[in-house]
Amino acid sequence: MASSFGRIFRLTTWGESHGPALGVVVEGCPAGIALHVEEIQHDLDRRRVGQSAVTTPRGEKDRAQILSGVFEGVTTGAPISLITYNADADSSKYDNLRDVFRPGHADYTYWAKYGHRDHRGGGRSSARETWGRVAAGAIARKVLASVGCEVFGFAREIGGIAMETFDRAAIEQNIVRCPDPAAAEKMVAAVLQAKAEKNSLGGVVEVRAIGVPVGLGEPTFDKLDALIGQAMLSIPATKGVEIGEGFAAARSTGFANNDPFVAENGRIRAGSNRAGGTLGGISSGEEIVVRVAVKPTSSVARPQQTVDVNMQPREILVEGRHDPSVVPRAVPVCEAMLAIVLADLLLLNRAARI
Amino acid sequence: MASSFGRIFRLTTWGESHGPALGVVVEGCPAGIALHVEEIQHDLDRRRVGQSAVTTPRGEKDRAQILSGVFEGVTTGAPISLITYNADADSSKYDNLRDVFRPGHADYTYWAKYGHRDHRGGGRSSARETWGRVAAGAIARKVLASVGCEVFGFAREIGGIAMETFDRAAIEQNIVRCPDPAAAEKMVAAVLQAKAEKNSLGGVVEVRAIGVPVGLGEPTFDKLDALIGQAMLSIPATKGVEIGEGFAAARSTGFANNDPFVAENGRIRAGSNRAGGTLGGISSGEEIVVRVAVKPTSSVARPQQTVDVNMQPREILVEGRHDPSVVPRAVPVCEAMLAIVLADLLLLNRAARI
Amino acid sequence: MASSFGRIFRLTTWGESHGPALGVVVEGCPAGIALHVEEIQHDLDRRRVGQSAVTTPRGEKDRAQILSGVFEGVTTGAPISLITYNADADSSKYDNLRDVFRPGHADYTYWAKYGHRDHRGGGRSSARETWGRVAAGAIARKVLASVGCEVFGFAREIGGIAMETFDRAAIEQNIVRCPDPAAAEKMVAAVLQAKAEKNSLGGVVEVRAIGVPVGLGEPTFDKLDALIGQAMLSIPATKGVEIGEGFAAARSTGFANNDPFVAENGRIRAGSNRAGGTLGGISSGEEIVVRVAVKPTSSVARPQQTVDVNMQPREILVEGRHDPSVVPRAVPVCEAMLAIVLADLLLLNRAARI
Amino acid sequence: MASSFGRIFRLTTWGESHGPALGVVVEGCPAGIALHVEEIQHDLDRRRVGQSAVTTPRGEKDRAQILSGVFEGVTTGAPISLITYNADADSSKYDNLRDVFRPGHADYTYWAKYGHRDHRGGGRSSARETWGRVAAGAIARKVLASVGCEVFGFAREIGGIAMETFDRAAIEQNIVRCPDPAAAEKMVAAVLQAKAEKNSLGGVVEVRAIGVPVGLGEPTFDKLDALIGQAMLSIPATKGVEIGEGFAAARSTGFANNDPFVAENGRIRAGSNRAGGTLGGISSGEEIVVRVAVKPTSSVARPQQTVDVNMQPREILVEGRHDPSVVPRAVPVCEAMLAIVLADLLLLNRAARI
Repeated sequence: MASSFGRIFRLTTWGESHGPALGVVVEGCPAGIALHVEEIQHDLDRRRVGQSAVTTPRGEKDRAQILSGVFEGVTTGAPISLITYNADADSSKYDNLRDVFRPGHADYTYWAKYGHRDHRGGGRSSARETWGRVAAGAIARKVLASVGCEVFGFAREIGGIAMETFDRAAIEQNIVRCPDPAAAEKMVAAVLQAKAEKNSLGGVVEVRAIGVPVGLGEPTFDKLDALIGQAMLSIPATKGVEIGEGFAAARSTGFANNDPFVAENGRIRAGSNRAGGTLGGISSGEEIVVRVAVKPTSSVARPQQTVDVNMQPREILVEGRHDPSVVPRAVPVCEAMLAIVLADLLLLNRAARI
Repeated sequence: MASSFGRIFRLTTWGESHGPALGVVVEGCPAGIALHVEEIQHDLDRRRVGQSAVTTPRGEKDRAQILSGVFEGVTTGAPISLITYNADADSSKYDNLRDVFRPGHADYTYWAKYGHRDHRGGGRSSARETWGRVAAGAIARKVLASVGCEVFGFAREIGGIAMETFDRAAIEQNIVRCPDPAAAEKMVAAVLQAKAEKNSLGGVVEVRAIGVPVGLGEPTFDKLDALIGQAMLSIPATKGVEIGEGFAAARSTGFANNDPFVAENGRIRAGSNRAGGTLGGISSGEEIVVRVAVKPTSSVARPQQTVDVNMQPREILVEGRHDPSVVPRAVPVCEAMLAIVLADLLLLNRAARI
Repeated sequence: MASSFGRIFRLTTWGESHGPALGVVVEGCPAGIALHVEEIQHDLDRRRVGQSAVTTPRGEKDRAQILSGVFEGVTTGAPISLITYNADADSSKYDNLRDVFRPGHADYTYWAKYGHRDHRGGGRSSARETWGRVAAGAIARKVLASVGCEVFGFAREIGGIAMETFDRAAIEQNIVRCPDPAAAEKMVAAVLQAKAEKNSLGGVVEVRAIGVPVGLGEPTFDKLDALIGQAMLSIPATKGVEIGEGFAAARSTGFANNDPFVAENGRIRAGSNRAGGTLGGISSGEEIVVRVAVKPTSSVARPQQTVDVNMQPREILVEGRHDPSVVPRAVPVCEAMLAIVLADLLLLNRAARI
Repeated sequence: MASSFGRIFRLTTWGESHGPALGVVVEGCPAGIALHVEEIQHDLDRRRVGQSAVTTPRGEKDRAQILSGVFEGVTTGAPISLITYNADADSSKYDNLRDVFRPGHADYTYWAKYGHRDHRGGGRSSARETWGRVAAGAIARKVLASVGCEVFGFAREIGGIAMETFDRAAIEQNIVRCPDPAAAEKMVAAVLQAKAEKNSLGGVVEVRAIGVPVGLGEPTFDKLDALIGQAMLSIPATKGVEIGEGFAAARSTGFANNDPFVAENGRIRAGSNRAGGTLGGISSGEEIVVRVAVKPTSSVARPQQTVDVNMQPREILVEGRHDPSVVPRAVPVCEAMLAIVLADLLLLNRAARI
């Protein structure tokens, strides 16, 4: 497995859903950043289980401890190790899944690849792994803040219900993190209904970055777009990513899709920003706009047809505690990954010129 | 810049649109593969300019030479260096663009990042860089062939016209590379009309891999999906990527979207394959299905509004020779990147178990 | 900082001398290895402080906990996280060193590079960081054991006293880890005398690997020799490394230095092995022989001249608890690094041929 | 194989001794450096075959061409591709070596690892590979020059004859590159005698860097010392490396070996510099001093005992054209590698602090 991401600002996550603990090591964070654990906890709480009626009721507090890399409240340049101990894992619900493959999950592919797997709560393939991403993302945000750059995200669409208005202040005012309060209400209702029906819903997360300096991205393979692609599609349950107009651009024309340059207040702008903030794989200074397709939770509490390790057909019922839609909790994870990509590219960009 | 991609099977591309030559170095290709330059040339000819009425008329032959890594027709494990000399670059068409930023292009971001740029034909940001990707991809295909794995691609949609039928044999029978001959005809007409109107069209490329062994992908950050995301979004003009049902999965439910497992001829299958061949970031043995959004060519031969390096407004006319739609030529590039990702993961997978 | 090492089998260490804990994450360990924490602890105990009269009396137990990557006693392929909590750090001894630079230590360079540092016990630059290396090395040994390869090491020379006989069984029978019992006695006496004189001694560690398969090493930059060079010179207090005859080969002739090949029991051998087990950067199947120069401990309990952060001259007395010679404890660290290099190259070598 | 080196400033070499060409791609060179091919050629000529009576008479001109990355005489940030075509390869001398293993060479290990090899002139394992290193090193020197840092090297010892005086100006005045003219004379005589006796000599190369900024090195695994170790031991024919006092430090005491800090002209200095310019793996601002053990050339024109691929004993005579001592030509190669390490760390160091 490859559990590291980043060139200079680099995180390594570890831990399983039902193991004793989860953690992350962040290498390459510059020295001199004031960092307090509560700043990290703030993001972790937005990702935490059990935060609302639309998330899984597993009762983890997900408290972070900083074990290294920070001295007297300031980063030293040394690797920052963060840990949280699992408290509320209930492995008994997984005993019947030891030898059987849950549809939509990684059970079969892990078993086939590694020959041996921790089946409890999905083991390493569980979305609990994203705890470390969000923790590292909080540190990445501090790096970005040093240049006035900020990342935020929201649920654009859940269960086919799309937002129609945008009020950034509204995002954290509802439990699905939708910037359109009216749409949010419908989304909540849809998720609760899916839950009642022992089903689940997918959706679209949008993440944006503002105040991004011009110049971030390392063509040709570490373009900003490319690293966003890797980052987002490494998140569990994601199936697609697009930047700016994305797939809609594929249906446009060159003349309509180009963003004209203008000079504005002493800056060069491409304000129509159909490109979503990148040109040639490098940030243009416009807002970065990324959308991520999140599939409906694979764990649904209805009987499903599958096979076991002996290739015998089995009907299974996936118990355990699950999110009827992971979209609201995927928002801080997508934010974290965008922040990490940008922080890494910000540091790399310091080497662009002599 | 970062011009390398891959962990074990690793390519490094170099060269500018109007420089003396372009090339690629492939490290980590296993020894013992019979490799002839004509196999590489076959793919390069599918990417080549001037191959049809819907591509740019620039007259490059794009002939590859193998300069290292192959002895007596067989790879030695040493880096394979491939080169092609530029022959038909016409830099005069770019003199007027030296100090001005073409909308939709990387001119501005390169200038801002590097302070200095080769403006001729887009320099390093030109899609001519993909020559090396396709050459390396041809070698990756040989690696994949050793396990019976094969990659192919096609135009799924151009200018809003989508394929409706699928006949793999038809793909290379038409100049847009569409597996639906009727749709192909409409696509060709649409591209020619856009060309006549000095405009351009985008579209959707689909690439697939068959015969993929179970187990390719290195969670959590080098998941098969994640590396596909990076690979595809590193290609010029791409704005989105999705796997399997992709964004459509975001509108489905867990119960409907899960692929049930069944045993079939001694293999475990998830044949409905809404997942597009990956589970938990690891290949499931089902067909890999990837779709890539390609924006309409930014170079359109109409006057456009922009600014120059002194932030003065300018109207420009982008001359040079351009593809009215890059979709047909993007097909072999997307194929190459998928082949490279899979070849790399195939080699990495050898280390999965003791 | 860059706290990771390895291509496939990759460790990331974290932690400071007086922080709450130290740890390591090992990525890329193959699945299917039986692994018990006591196997790791065995090596850690050989590295542990306070193990004898020639080591520092700091009273850490250095107990390892496995937090991830092992399920039911067997590795899963997931990252293996190991942690130990610091118990006996006495930071009060370092208060007077907060603003002053100890000669021979990293205080000045860390301060100049990072602007801010954890001065307690050397912070990140402390040799306590090697806890994680030895823990990871124990896992690497298990990988190597799968092919019958074994690593061991010893003190070849301390304070100018060199071993003259070699009895592998004697190594762990004396507290300096010397395979020559008579020399060991003299070494112990020399170290104790240096300690009494508030001084310290250096020496030469030798590490060897037996049962190494032919073929490990990735020319030209990841040659076996090159990675050994990086690995050994990344260990605190090391100042030189040589392989086989090493610097003595520089004084030999080609005819005398070449190892003739012979066939022996169905194997090709270069048994005179002046090369130390590598040819062209690749293991030859002969014993790997590496020697590492270890400088005398920089912390000596005598007054020394130095300057402070304001460039004012200061006389300091370095208190704290220190090894009068680090050579005995460097043995397991050098072994660990050789094991890690070989395990990584063993896994990489699986990709050498189609 | 792994033919790349460096984190940001990264080179990839390719090519075989008797292939059509050799080359290197340099990624990550900052934009804005004036670069002319003659600057590169200057170093290449110092490495070139046939330059004097003590080097092989193979008649390569080794002329470099710049194929990318430089526009109007200035680097653009894009990968810089450099190539030289082989002109004077005489493969006929190697026909009899196709199936036999030359002692001291990589023939056997390449064959065992890859199953198939280019036997002509050593193929990929030939020291001709170092052409690309020297070319890349010339570019690295330009990066270093931007901060006033300079690298130089010399033969410290050949065939047991050591320099006794140091006059930097004398280095390039004699064909062995020794800074002691009297010793140089003896070295030349010794090399010519070895040549006459169909034998060869080893020696010690010393490389130094002056004007190095404080702060270069990325603990703990990419310490300056560690990367120097990897860099030097990746060069063909090297068997050892030491920094500062090196192995002599192993025989010293802590009190004698520590370099006291003093303030001098507004700078903190450790002028006795027994450490060789690094503390804790980070440059201290003092001169970097590195010594490299170079073994005697393995190709000696006397009959030698060996075996063939069928394990049959064979007596062979290694023809071809060889250096009776590679030390003089190893000087620019070691310089290049030190320059590359420093340039890379210089760029990485820009990310050390917020």
